[in-house]
Amino acid sequence: MKKISLLGATGSIGTQTLDLVRLHPEQFQIVALSFGRNLELGLKLVNEFQPKLISVLSKEDRTIVEQQLTYSAKVTYGEDGLTEVATHPDATILVNAVIGSVGLIPTLEAIKEKKTIAIANKETLVTAGQIVMNLAEKYEVDILPVDSEHSAIFQSLVGQDQSKISRLILTASGGSFRDRNREELKDVTVKEALAHPNWSMGAKITIDSATMMNKGLEVIEARWLFNIPYEKIEVILHKESIIHSMVEYDDTSVMAQLGTPDMRVPIQYALTYPYRLELPISKKLNLWEIGTLHFNKVDFERYKCLAFAYEAGKAGGTLPTVLNAANEVAVDAFLSGRVNFLEIEDLIERALEAHQNIMDPDLQTIQQVDQETRRYVVSLLK
Amino acid sequence: MKKISLLGATGSIGTQTLDLVRLHPEQFQIVALSFGRNLELGLKLVNEFQPKLISVLSKEDRTIVEQQLTYSAKVTYGEDGLTEVATHPDATILVNAVIGSVGLIPTLEAIKEKKTIAIANKETLVTAGQIVMNLAEKYEVDILPVDSEHSAIFQSLVGQDQSKISRLILTASGGSFRDRNREELKDVTVKEALAHPNWSMGAKITIDSATMMNKGLEVIEARWLFNIPYEKIEVILHKESIIHSMVEYDDTSVMAQLGTPDMRVPIQYALTYPYRLELPISKKLNLWEIGTLHFNKVDFERYKCLAFAYEAGKAGGTLPTVLNAANEVAVDAFLSGRVNFLEIEDLIERALEAHQNIMDPDLQTIQQVDQETRRYVVSLLK
Repeated sequence: MKKISLLGATGSIGTQTLDLVRLHPEQFQIVALSFGRNLELGLKLVNEFQPKLISVLSKEDRTIVEQQLTYSAKVTYGEDGLTEVATHPDATILVNAVIGSVGLIPTLEAIKEKKTIAIANKETLVTAGQIVMNLAEKYEVDILPVDSEHSAIFQSLVGQDQSKISRLILTASGGSFRDRNREELKDVTVKEALAHPNWSMGAKITIDSATMMNKGLEVIEARWLFNIPYEKIEVILHKESIIHSMVEYDDTSVMAQLGTPDMRVPIQYALTYPYRLELPISKKLNLWEIGTLHFNKVDFERYKCLAFAYEAGKAGGTLPTVLNAANEVAVDAFLSGRVNFLEIEDLIERALEAHQNIMDPDLQTIQQVDQETRRYVVSLLK
Repeated sequence: MKKISLLGATGSIGTQTLDLVRLHPEQFQIVALSFGRNLELGLKLVNEFQPKLISVLSKEDRTIVEQQLTYSAKVTYGEDGLTEVATHPDATILVNAVIGSVGLIPTLEAIKEKKTIAIANKETLVTAGQIVMNLAEKYEVDILPVDSEHSAIFQSLVGQDQSKISRLILTASGGSFRDRNREELKDVTVKEALAHPNWSMGAKITIDSATMMNKGLEVIEARWLFNIPYEKIEVILHKESIIHSMVEYDDTSVMAQLGTPDMRVPIQYALTYPYRLELPISKKLNLWEIGTLHFNKVDFERYKCLAFAYEAGKAGGTLPTVLNAANEVAVDAFLSGRVNFLEIEDLIERALEAHQNIMDPDLQTIQQVDQETRRYVVSLLK
């Protein structure tokens, strides 16, 4: 029985994690969870899974939840609540499925408590990859990827000669607008941007897919998760999202993980690693049904956010923190109709240009830069 | 330094094995080798690699080789010579790259001497898979695949949860005539049959690719190498030969090994397993250069030899031996112009139908059936 604490239970990764707990009640148990704005769904889920500890957004939400619980549990709230869930003494693994850099502190605290970390919250590694990985090494904690691309790379590394990696090759679907040129991107609507061709995901990550910032964040995440220099990390367009990513070795052999796009596969692998478990609710891959897989070179002019991510990643210091914070605010502004699609890039570019990079930042510096960047980008919206 | 004995040095796999020894002289050494009809090349190679022991076809060949050696070595010949090479006391690994069931006895004797077996000689496993694998288990010897498909499967199994394999998926290029229907196969020439679209291989295996018997033999080989029932072994057409084969697990995840078609990659992996080694002479895979990968369902009516192989494999007993022996004689007859392309299938089918299957055969029975089948198919040629 694996005892899980889950941050972000009502989100896309959170609900799919709970699908797996529902499917394998003899294997997995939720001992603590958090949720945010979606109170109604959160209440339904806690009454179903009956975790011992629940964390919500605010004191007011706590009162509402306490009143509607059908069993006995502790309810807490806010940022401290997230950390309390992440470090629950009964849990052996933390599934970090919150969105944004709010996932950072709970992750660090869970590492100190020697919890295995299943990380879907890529912003944590983007904004503070070095700090997270150093801490994980110190406490001998596994950081297991949940993202389909990183899970594919992780699965392509298991049991292999990791001293002979020549390239990590991340596949990218190209997102909602992959068949449009830059001119055609000017007037796209939020609704169009939210229609991802292959994956069913949350709003923020779907917009990130459309700008290709998602792939940029993944490049930075891969750099930290697998301790590989940026020069050895490539992105290739693969519109069917069947090959989830690849690892090339020095003998030219390429290992890859494939499957029907279904996030429950990488989530479950993080929960069962190094073992596997049946997943009858996922559709088996039949390549002859699909018939054709396509691959294209990435155009960095077309996908500027990917170029920004490589630049920020290679520069290091606090620049990846700026990239991530500026992107979070810019995507929010697009989703609420305050800027158009191409202005997301402009906002990020201006934030990166305005920033004086600070090398080897500590956690406090990172948090300060994160806040300053958010304020700066908000100021540009006025 | 890995000390290698090599059966079949002048063939396609043999010369490519020697390419690797030439490339990595600090890693690999040839201590014993055999060759057959290609005396001229054989002599050149032994004088270059200077093995301590050489085996040739006949007493007459031995005299010729002894006269032309530029260094001191023992020269032997015939079937006993193959076994002497395979069991050379200095060797830790046998690369069995001979063609046909002549590779069986030397393999069994090498296993008894606890040599690791790198097997390119698929007929050995087809004709006596159970005996070979039982002996390997008894002597705790690794049987490592050299075939690109089996190497791909092997690489997709390393480090994985092997209790959760749901399917082995062998890819098949479709061979020289993949774009022709059966009607168009009647009058094809030997030269046309020998023009394989992707792989540069020997004559027998290239014809086997055209009839798809090669994939049939590989299915039987996979059954023994990986101890997987036929019901879990599938074949898919993939004309580019970029995905070399795949393993599907119970969680629907599919692991695959990809690369530019180059036999030196799987040969080297068998020599370096579980490690890898640089292979600068092999071309790296760039999927965006290739652009598109195609997959099609196999038509068992079109490729009768593949259907025969599944039938013979599932029936077990001596039927796989008959399949293999009949195929060897039939392909020989086609290459020497005695039968046309479609008659290869007819000869195999008649041999299978004429045979009274014997279950759990011992080695002597297998050898007897092998000889009887050859005589029977030769008799059909008159």
